[in-house]
Formats: sequence, structure tokens, C-alpha cells
Amino acid sequence: MSTAGQVIRCKAAVAWEAGKPLSIEEVEVAPPQKHEVRIKILFTALCHTDVYYWECKVLLFDIMNITTFIFCKYCHCFPLTWQGYTPLFPRILGHEASGIVESVGEGVNDLKPGDHVLPIFTGECKECRHCLSEESNNMCELLRINCDRGVMLADGKTRFSINGKPIYHFVGTSTFSQYTVVHVGQVAKISPTAPLDKVCPISCGICTGFGATVNVAKPKKGQTVAVFGLGAVGLAAAEGARVCGASRIIAVDVNPRRFEEAKRFGITEFVNPKDYDKPVQEVIVEMTGGGVDRSVECTGSVQAMISAFECVHDGWGVCVLVGVPKKDDAFKTHPMNLLSERTLKGAFYGNYKPRTDIPMVVDKYLNKELGLDMDKFITHSVPFADINKAFDYMLQGIGLRCMIHLDA
Amino acid sequence: MSTAGQVIRCKAAVAWEAGKPLSIEEVEVAPPQKHEVRIKILFTALCHTDVYYWECKVLLFDIMNITTFIFCKYCHCFPLTWQGYTPLFPRILGHEASGIVESVGEGVNDLKPGDHVLPIFTGECKECRHCLSEESNNMCELLRINCDRGVMLADGKTRFSINGKPIYHFVGTSTFSQYTVVHVGQVAKISPTAPLDKVCPISCGICTGFGATVNVAKPKKGQTVAVFGLGAVGLAAAEGARVCGASRIIAVDVNPRRFEEAKRFGITEFVNPKDYDKPVQEVIVEMTGGGVDRSVECTGSVQAMISAFECVHDGWGVCVLVGVPKKDDAFKTHPMNLLSERTLKGAFYGNYKPRTDIPMVVDKYLNKELGLDMDKFITHSVPFADINKAFDYMLQGIGLRCMIHLDA
Ligand SMILES: NC(=O)c1ccc[n+]([C@@H]2O[C@H](COP(=O)([O-])OP(=O)(O)OC[C@H]3O[C@@H](n4cnc5c(N)ncnc54)[C@H](O)[C@@H]3O)[C@@H](O)[C@H]2O)c1
Ligand SMILES: NC(=O)c1ccc[n+]([C@@H]2O[C@H](COP(=O)([O-])OP(=O)(O)OC[C@H]3O[C@@H](n4cnc5c(N)ncnc54)[C@H](O)[C@@H]3O)[C@@H](O)[C@H]2O)c1
Ligand SMILES: [Zn+2]
Ligand SMILES: [Zn+2]
Ligand SMILES: [Zn+2]
Ligand SMILES: [Zn+2]
Repeated sequence: MSTAGQVIRCKAAVAWEAGKPLSIEEVEVAPPQKHEVRIKILFTALCHTDVYYWECKVLLFDIMNITTFIFCKYCHCFPLTWQGYTPLFPRILGHEASGIVESVGEGVNDLKPGDHVLPIFTGECKECRHCLSEESNNMCELLRINCDRGVMLADGKTRFSINGKPIYHFVGTSTFSQYTVVHVGQVAKISPTAPLDKVCPISCGICTGFGATVNVAKPKKGQTVAVFGLGAVGLAAAEGARVCGASRIIAVDVNPRRFEEAKRFGITEFVNPKDYDKPVQEVIVEMTGGGVDRSVECTGSVQAMISAFECVHDGWGVCVLVGVPKKDDAFKTHPMNLLSERTLKGAFYGNYKPRTDIPMVVDKYLNKELGLDMDKFITHSVPFADINKAFDYMLQGIGLRCMIHLDA
Repeated sequence: MSTAGQVIRCKAAVAWEAGKPLSIEEVEVAPPQKHEVRIKILFTALCHTDVYYWECKVLLFDIMNITTFIFCKYCHCFPLTWQGYTPLFPRILGHEASGIVESVGEGVNDLKPGDHVLPIFTGECKECRHCLSEESNNMCELLRINCDRGVMLADGKTRFSINGKPIYHFVGTSTFSQYTVVHVGQVAKISPTAPLDKVCPISCGICTGFGATVNVAKPKKGQTVAVFGLGAVGLAAAEGARVCGASRIIAVDVNPRRFEEAKRFGITEFVNPKDYDKPVQEVIVEMTGGGVDRSVECTGSVQAMISAFECVHDGWGVCVLVGVPKKDDAFKTHPMNLLSERTLKGAFYGNYKPRTDIPMVVDKYLNKELGLDMDKFITHSVPFADINKAFDYMLQGIGLRCMIHLDA
């Protein structure tokens, strides 16, 4: 019997208060409205951003020119709209997930019940100046990541409730629920043959790092790549370098314990800046006889950003920044480092357009064209009831991704 | 009767001392040695760099990471090898020129007497790591611009002399002479149908600015472009924008007198930062509803470099730096300006490879495919005997390029 048009009652992990364990509750999920999709979530993973908004130690700040955005202190990974942040509770977190469309609202033509999908934290309306730009970009004006809005765009209300009391959304995805409602612009339709547990992390961390390398740094076969920072983002960036056929992948981290986990990722050399008396960029320039061809920074440390830029070869070197900086950081270099024909870029969500590109990324993963080995990233798994264990793993820095099974 | 293999006696404008008018002398020009070419120069123009090395107020400095280069104070346009600079006199200056091959030395296979050529201040050996790199670059390890070497590479000696006394070379070109000897790697062979007086400035200033726009910034048809600095380099960059079909070309200069000359160059708007209370990047962001698509900085002022970068649109904007900075300058911006998907690059000699690309640039100019109107740049002309007038024009900031006729 179809549930379309009706309220669905299901289980969700609700964050009632900052920092308190989530509790599994029965929630009501309203039908999707205009341009919305209701999705049955099967798998979800945890990313720093969820933990951050659960802990709710937001640090507001204005930045030099973009006074309309702020960034979170914990993983720094997401711009928030600037409006003075008030912690939103109760809330359903979660944004790295996979599922199946249950029903669609008015005006949704490119999705239907039964479609396999990934909800994405940042959207693609396909109509704004950014979405229509023929130059690659994914900073949609309507659906650009927004961490502090807890309601849907259509009516400014929530689709979740418990006994009539609204439960807030998170980055438009709220995937810690067996059913969720998402704007169609934040839904990537993927192949029905994709194993939903494996492709789930493609929706966030993996694409950020992998895309920074393959879409933005674009190393050519045989080139050398330096990756700064060996969290999930940096390791996905290193995977990108391996897939591109890099001859050397030089990993830089100030925490040598990261090197053990990283050995499974095809990295050829490890450098700990703390082992040297001189700036690490000089060490890398010497190791490579002039500098690496590409570098990807995935730390959030401005010193690492500068080192990542200054360690690329003159004439052709490209440096891509991914890590998000702190309030008072300034990227600083002598302009001559640019004039000698180096390139400096930043990348958001690996430059992927959520709806246009992600289905193709999944297809390539399935055809083994992508070369990405998702199993290396999925180090743990738990049933939905044990979702708080996933929080513990992340807080203790154990493993990379813990897969949460919502049907188990 | 062939002059090949013999010493040629001809006229040259010799700089005997710093800042003293050049004097036209009869010099002996030795035959070309291995990998050298002797060229009959027909036209030469003057560029800031010539004036600078004539005035010889060199300011040595080391820069953050590239301690092997220094830059000249006057036009800052050229890296010098780092070795403590001693003014070299007597010397034959000149590096923007056109001529005809008189004879070639051993091992020169791709040029023969009668070929029309442009000598270029920076070379392309076609064998080093830079020249062989499949990625665009022109920073040849053997023939990269060198302003303080006054001799030829083959034997460390000069090819010019007066009564046996050596006269030094300048950037390997020394075009203020009716005959000169140049390394084959610094010679671009061009079509014999090219008018040598018109194509002469292609060999330096024009390519630097034009190439920065068309090869590096690459605006698409209909996009908006900001050009900072309205010297010959900035005006050539603006020409590049016009040729690419830019819908708006916004010129920025702190000297409003530059606007008059610039009106002939298709610029659509003029902005003087001094007319505003806020940073000029904010003015441009407002004028364009979010920022320009591309910007090209041709001033040498680090503040202009920062403004040029921060005035490009997020999501896709590209800023290209051309002006060469001062000793203690630091390019400084909040990394978030990069993360929101802006690109920052530098360009040397417009990214053109001297031997590979310049012949094609001349062909396109001849076929009117380039769209570049050289006549707008050539504002004056003088016979060789009046070469000091060209120095006066430049010192007084009159016009753009003064063509010196060596046969007149
Ligand atoms: N641009 C985007 O779209 C986007 C999206 C998600 C995350 N991010 C950012 O990517 C970065 C990495 O994310 P993550 O989840 O992998 O983080 P993480 O904290 O798991 O890993 C960061 C690593 O960097 C190392 N590090 C810190 N300072 C360093 C330095 N100076 N030199 C070398 N290594 C250093 C740390 O030891 C750590 O191993 C974060 O800054 C995050 O905000 C960006
Ligand atoms: N990268 C290269 O290969 C290369 C080659 C040649 C020249 N250059 C550099 O290009 C730059 C321009 O050369 P040019 O011969 O046209 O110089 P120029 O002196 O004729 O013109 C520079 C212009 O910039 C303007 N300006 C100065 N500060 C400014 C500011 N803060 N904001 C706006 N405008 C400002 C000046 O008023 C002037 O009109 C120089 O720095 C030169 O060294 C680079
Ligand atoms: Zn995430
Ligand atoms: Zn959009
Ligand atoms: Zn010049
Ligand atoms: Zn070379």
C-alpha cells in the first residue's frame, strides 16, 4: 500500500540538546511539498560536521570580504549564512547517506518512487547564475550549504514532528532518520545497481578530497603530488592522486599516528614537518628537485596552506586548498611565487555539481573506472540503535567512516 | 657578396656610462658561434627595462623563496640571476626588435640567412625540463631571462667590440645595433610577409599583456574583465579582453591621465581607486553584481594585486598577476576567498613559448585572426640617429611605443 501523501511514522535519532547522546524516537514525517522528495534512508555515516553541530560549539566570525558566511570551528567545513547562530534543538542531524525515493512532491519530474538516491548537503537548483554558469562551479545561490536553517525553503516549516512538536532539519538532509524530506535540488539520482552501503560516503567527505585532486589539481600520469593532512578528506585526495597515476604521493601531517592508517592508500612518502628545522616546503622542493607538480591541502591550518603552495614547481605547479581556515588567518606569500607561473585555487565539495556530476561518479565507481576503493574508508559498522557508538569512534579518532544501518 | 663568417662593421648605439645619452658608434660584430645567429636588425623599440638598465639604479633584493632571482626597481619586469649586480658598461641595450638573419653558426638547422625573425629576451632551448614539460610554461632553464650576463653562453665572451675592446650584450638580444648575435633559442622565425615595423613590439610588451589575458585569464565571450594599470602592458591586456569578446572592460588606474590614451582601446569603464572611500575591489564587486569574471593586474603594486584578486566573482573568477612586486611585498588574502572557488595565477611573458608560439602569433596577426591592432601602440617613430629622443619620450611618459628605424 502506498504511503504517498500520508504522514509516515518511523524511527529517527533525535538530538534534544547539545552534546547529549542522541535518542531513537518515533517521529512523524510529513509528505513532501512542492519541489521536495521524501526518501527512505538505508545507510548513513557520520562526518565531523554532524558531531560539530551536535556539540554546538559554533564560533562565529566575519571574514575579510565574504561577510555573508561563517564557518564552524570544529571541522571548519561549512559556510553558514551569517545571521548570528542560535543552536537549533531538537534536531535531526546527518548528511552523508544513501536511500530510496518513497514519494515526490508537486513539480518534481526527474525523480520517482523507487529511485536510488544520495541526499547532498549543498544543492544545485539548475536555475541560478552559479548553476547556469558554463564554468565549473557548485555554489548555487538558492541551495548553497546552509547549516543554521532548520526548516524547509517552501514554507519555512519542518517536515519532522513528535506529537505535533517540530523537530528541526540539518543542512537540508537530516539523514539520521528512516525517512527524511529533502529539496529536489539536493538529491542525486544514482544507478539502482549501486550498493547503497558502499556509495554512501561519496555524498560528502570522499567527493571533497577526491574531487579536489581529480577535478581541480588534475595531476597528469607520472606527476608528483603532495597531500597535506591525512584525515578522510586528505586520504580521499591521495586516492585521487593514485587514480590519476601519480608517480609519487608525498603525505604531510604533523600527527605521525596518521601515517599508519594512511599506508593502505598508496602513499609513497611521509613527511612530518616537526622532524625538520626548515619549512616543510623547502624539504619537499629538495626531495623532488624543484617542487611537486601538484599539492592538495586538507588540514585547515593556514601554515600548511602556505607550505602547500610554496612547494609546487615553478612554471606549472598547481596548489589546491580544501581545508577551511580560522577567523584571523591570512594566506601570505611573495607575489613572485605566483609570477613564476604557479597556480593557486580553492575547492568546495571537490568542485562536483551535486545533481549533474554525482550520478556519473557513482557509475564510474560501479564500472571500476573511478579506481576509488570505498572499502578502505568504511572501517566500522553499527545498527541504527547504536548510532552513539559512531559518535564515540569519531570523537576518539578511531577509523575513518562508521556505516550506520537504518534498517538493522 | 656574403658576409657570413666575417666580422661585420656597422652602427650601434652604445651606452658607455649609466644615464649618459647613447652614442652611435661603428662596432665590429663577430660571426655567430655554435647555436648562434647573426641578425640584421631593422626596427627596434624601447621598453622600460632598457631605460632601467641604462639608468642603472638597480635595487638588489632577495625574495621569500626564490633567492636565486632579483628584479629591477624601475619596471620590475625581469628576474636577474642572483649574483650581486655590477653595472655592465659599455653595453648595447635593446630587446624589442625585428630583423633578418644574416648568417648562422654551427648546429643551427631551423634558421637560414634571409629568414625574418624576432629576437626574444627570454629563450626556449627545447631540451630542459621546462621546455619539455607538456604543461604550458616558458621558464627555460638554459635561456630564462638574464639581465646581468653581458656575454654569450658559448664562450663567455662578447660578439661586439670597438677596436678590440669588448662591448657587453643585454638580455642576449642587444638590438640597438644594425647587426647583433643571439642564441638560436632566443630567435622566433616569423612569416616573411610580416611588416617588420609593426610586429616588432610583439617581441616584448605586447605579448606580456595580451598573452596574460588570452592565454592565462582566458575570458569567454560576453564575460567581464578588469584590468589594473594602463601602461603598455595593461593596454595590451585590455586588447586581449576586447579580442576575447569581453562585454565590459573595466580599467583601474591611480593616474587619471592614463584614461585619455586608454580610450582608444575599447575600455568600457574607468575606475580611479582614489575617487572612493572603500577598497576598489568592493567598488568593482558592486558595479558588476558580484565581481568580474576575470582580472589582470599590470601595475607592480601589491595593493593592486590584492584588489585584482578580491574583485573576481566567487565560483569561477580568475585573477592573473603580471606586475612584478617590490622586495618586501606580501600578497595577502583570507583563504576563504580562494575556497569559494576563485583562481589566482601569475604570468611571465604572457605564457608564450618564444620559439614555438611567437611565429603563430605573428601569423594570426597577419590573418587578422588575432584582432590586435598594433598601430594603436606605435605612437612615435625616429631614425636611428635620434634614438635618444625615444628615451626622452619614455622618461616623460609620452605615448606608448617609439619605433626606431635602424636603416634610416
Ligand atoms: N572545501 C570543502 O568543501 C570541505 C569539505 C569538508 C571538509 N573540508 C575541510 O577539509 C579539512 C580536512 O578535513 P578532515 O575531515 O579530513 O579533517 P581531520 O581533522 O580528520 O584531518 C586533518 C589532518 O590535518 C593534520 N594537520 C593539521 N595541521 C597540520 C599542519 N600544519 N601540517 C600538516 N598536517 C596538519 C592533522 O594532524 C589531521 O591529521 C578540514 O579543514 C575541513 O574543514 C573542506
Ligand atoms: N610578468 C612579466 O612577464 C612582465 C613583463 C614585462 C612587464 N611586467 C610588469 O608589468 C607591469 C606593467 O608594466 P608597464 O610597462 O605597463 O608599466 P607602467 O609603469 O607603464 O604602467 C603601470 C600603471 O599602473 C598604474 N598603477 C600603479 N599603482 C597602481 C594601483 N595601486 N592601482 C591602480 N593602478 C596603479 C600606474 O599609474 C601606471 O599607469 C610592471 O610591474 C612590469 O614590471 C611584467
Ligand atoms: Zn560531511
Ligand atoms: Zn543554483
Ligand atoms: Zn621589454
Ligand atoms: Zn629550456
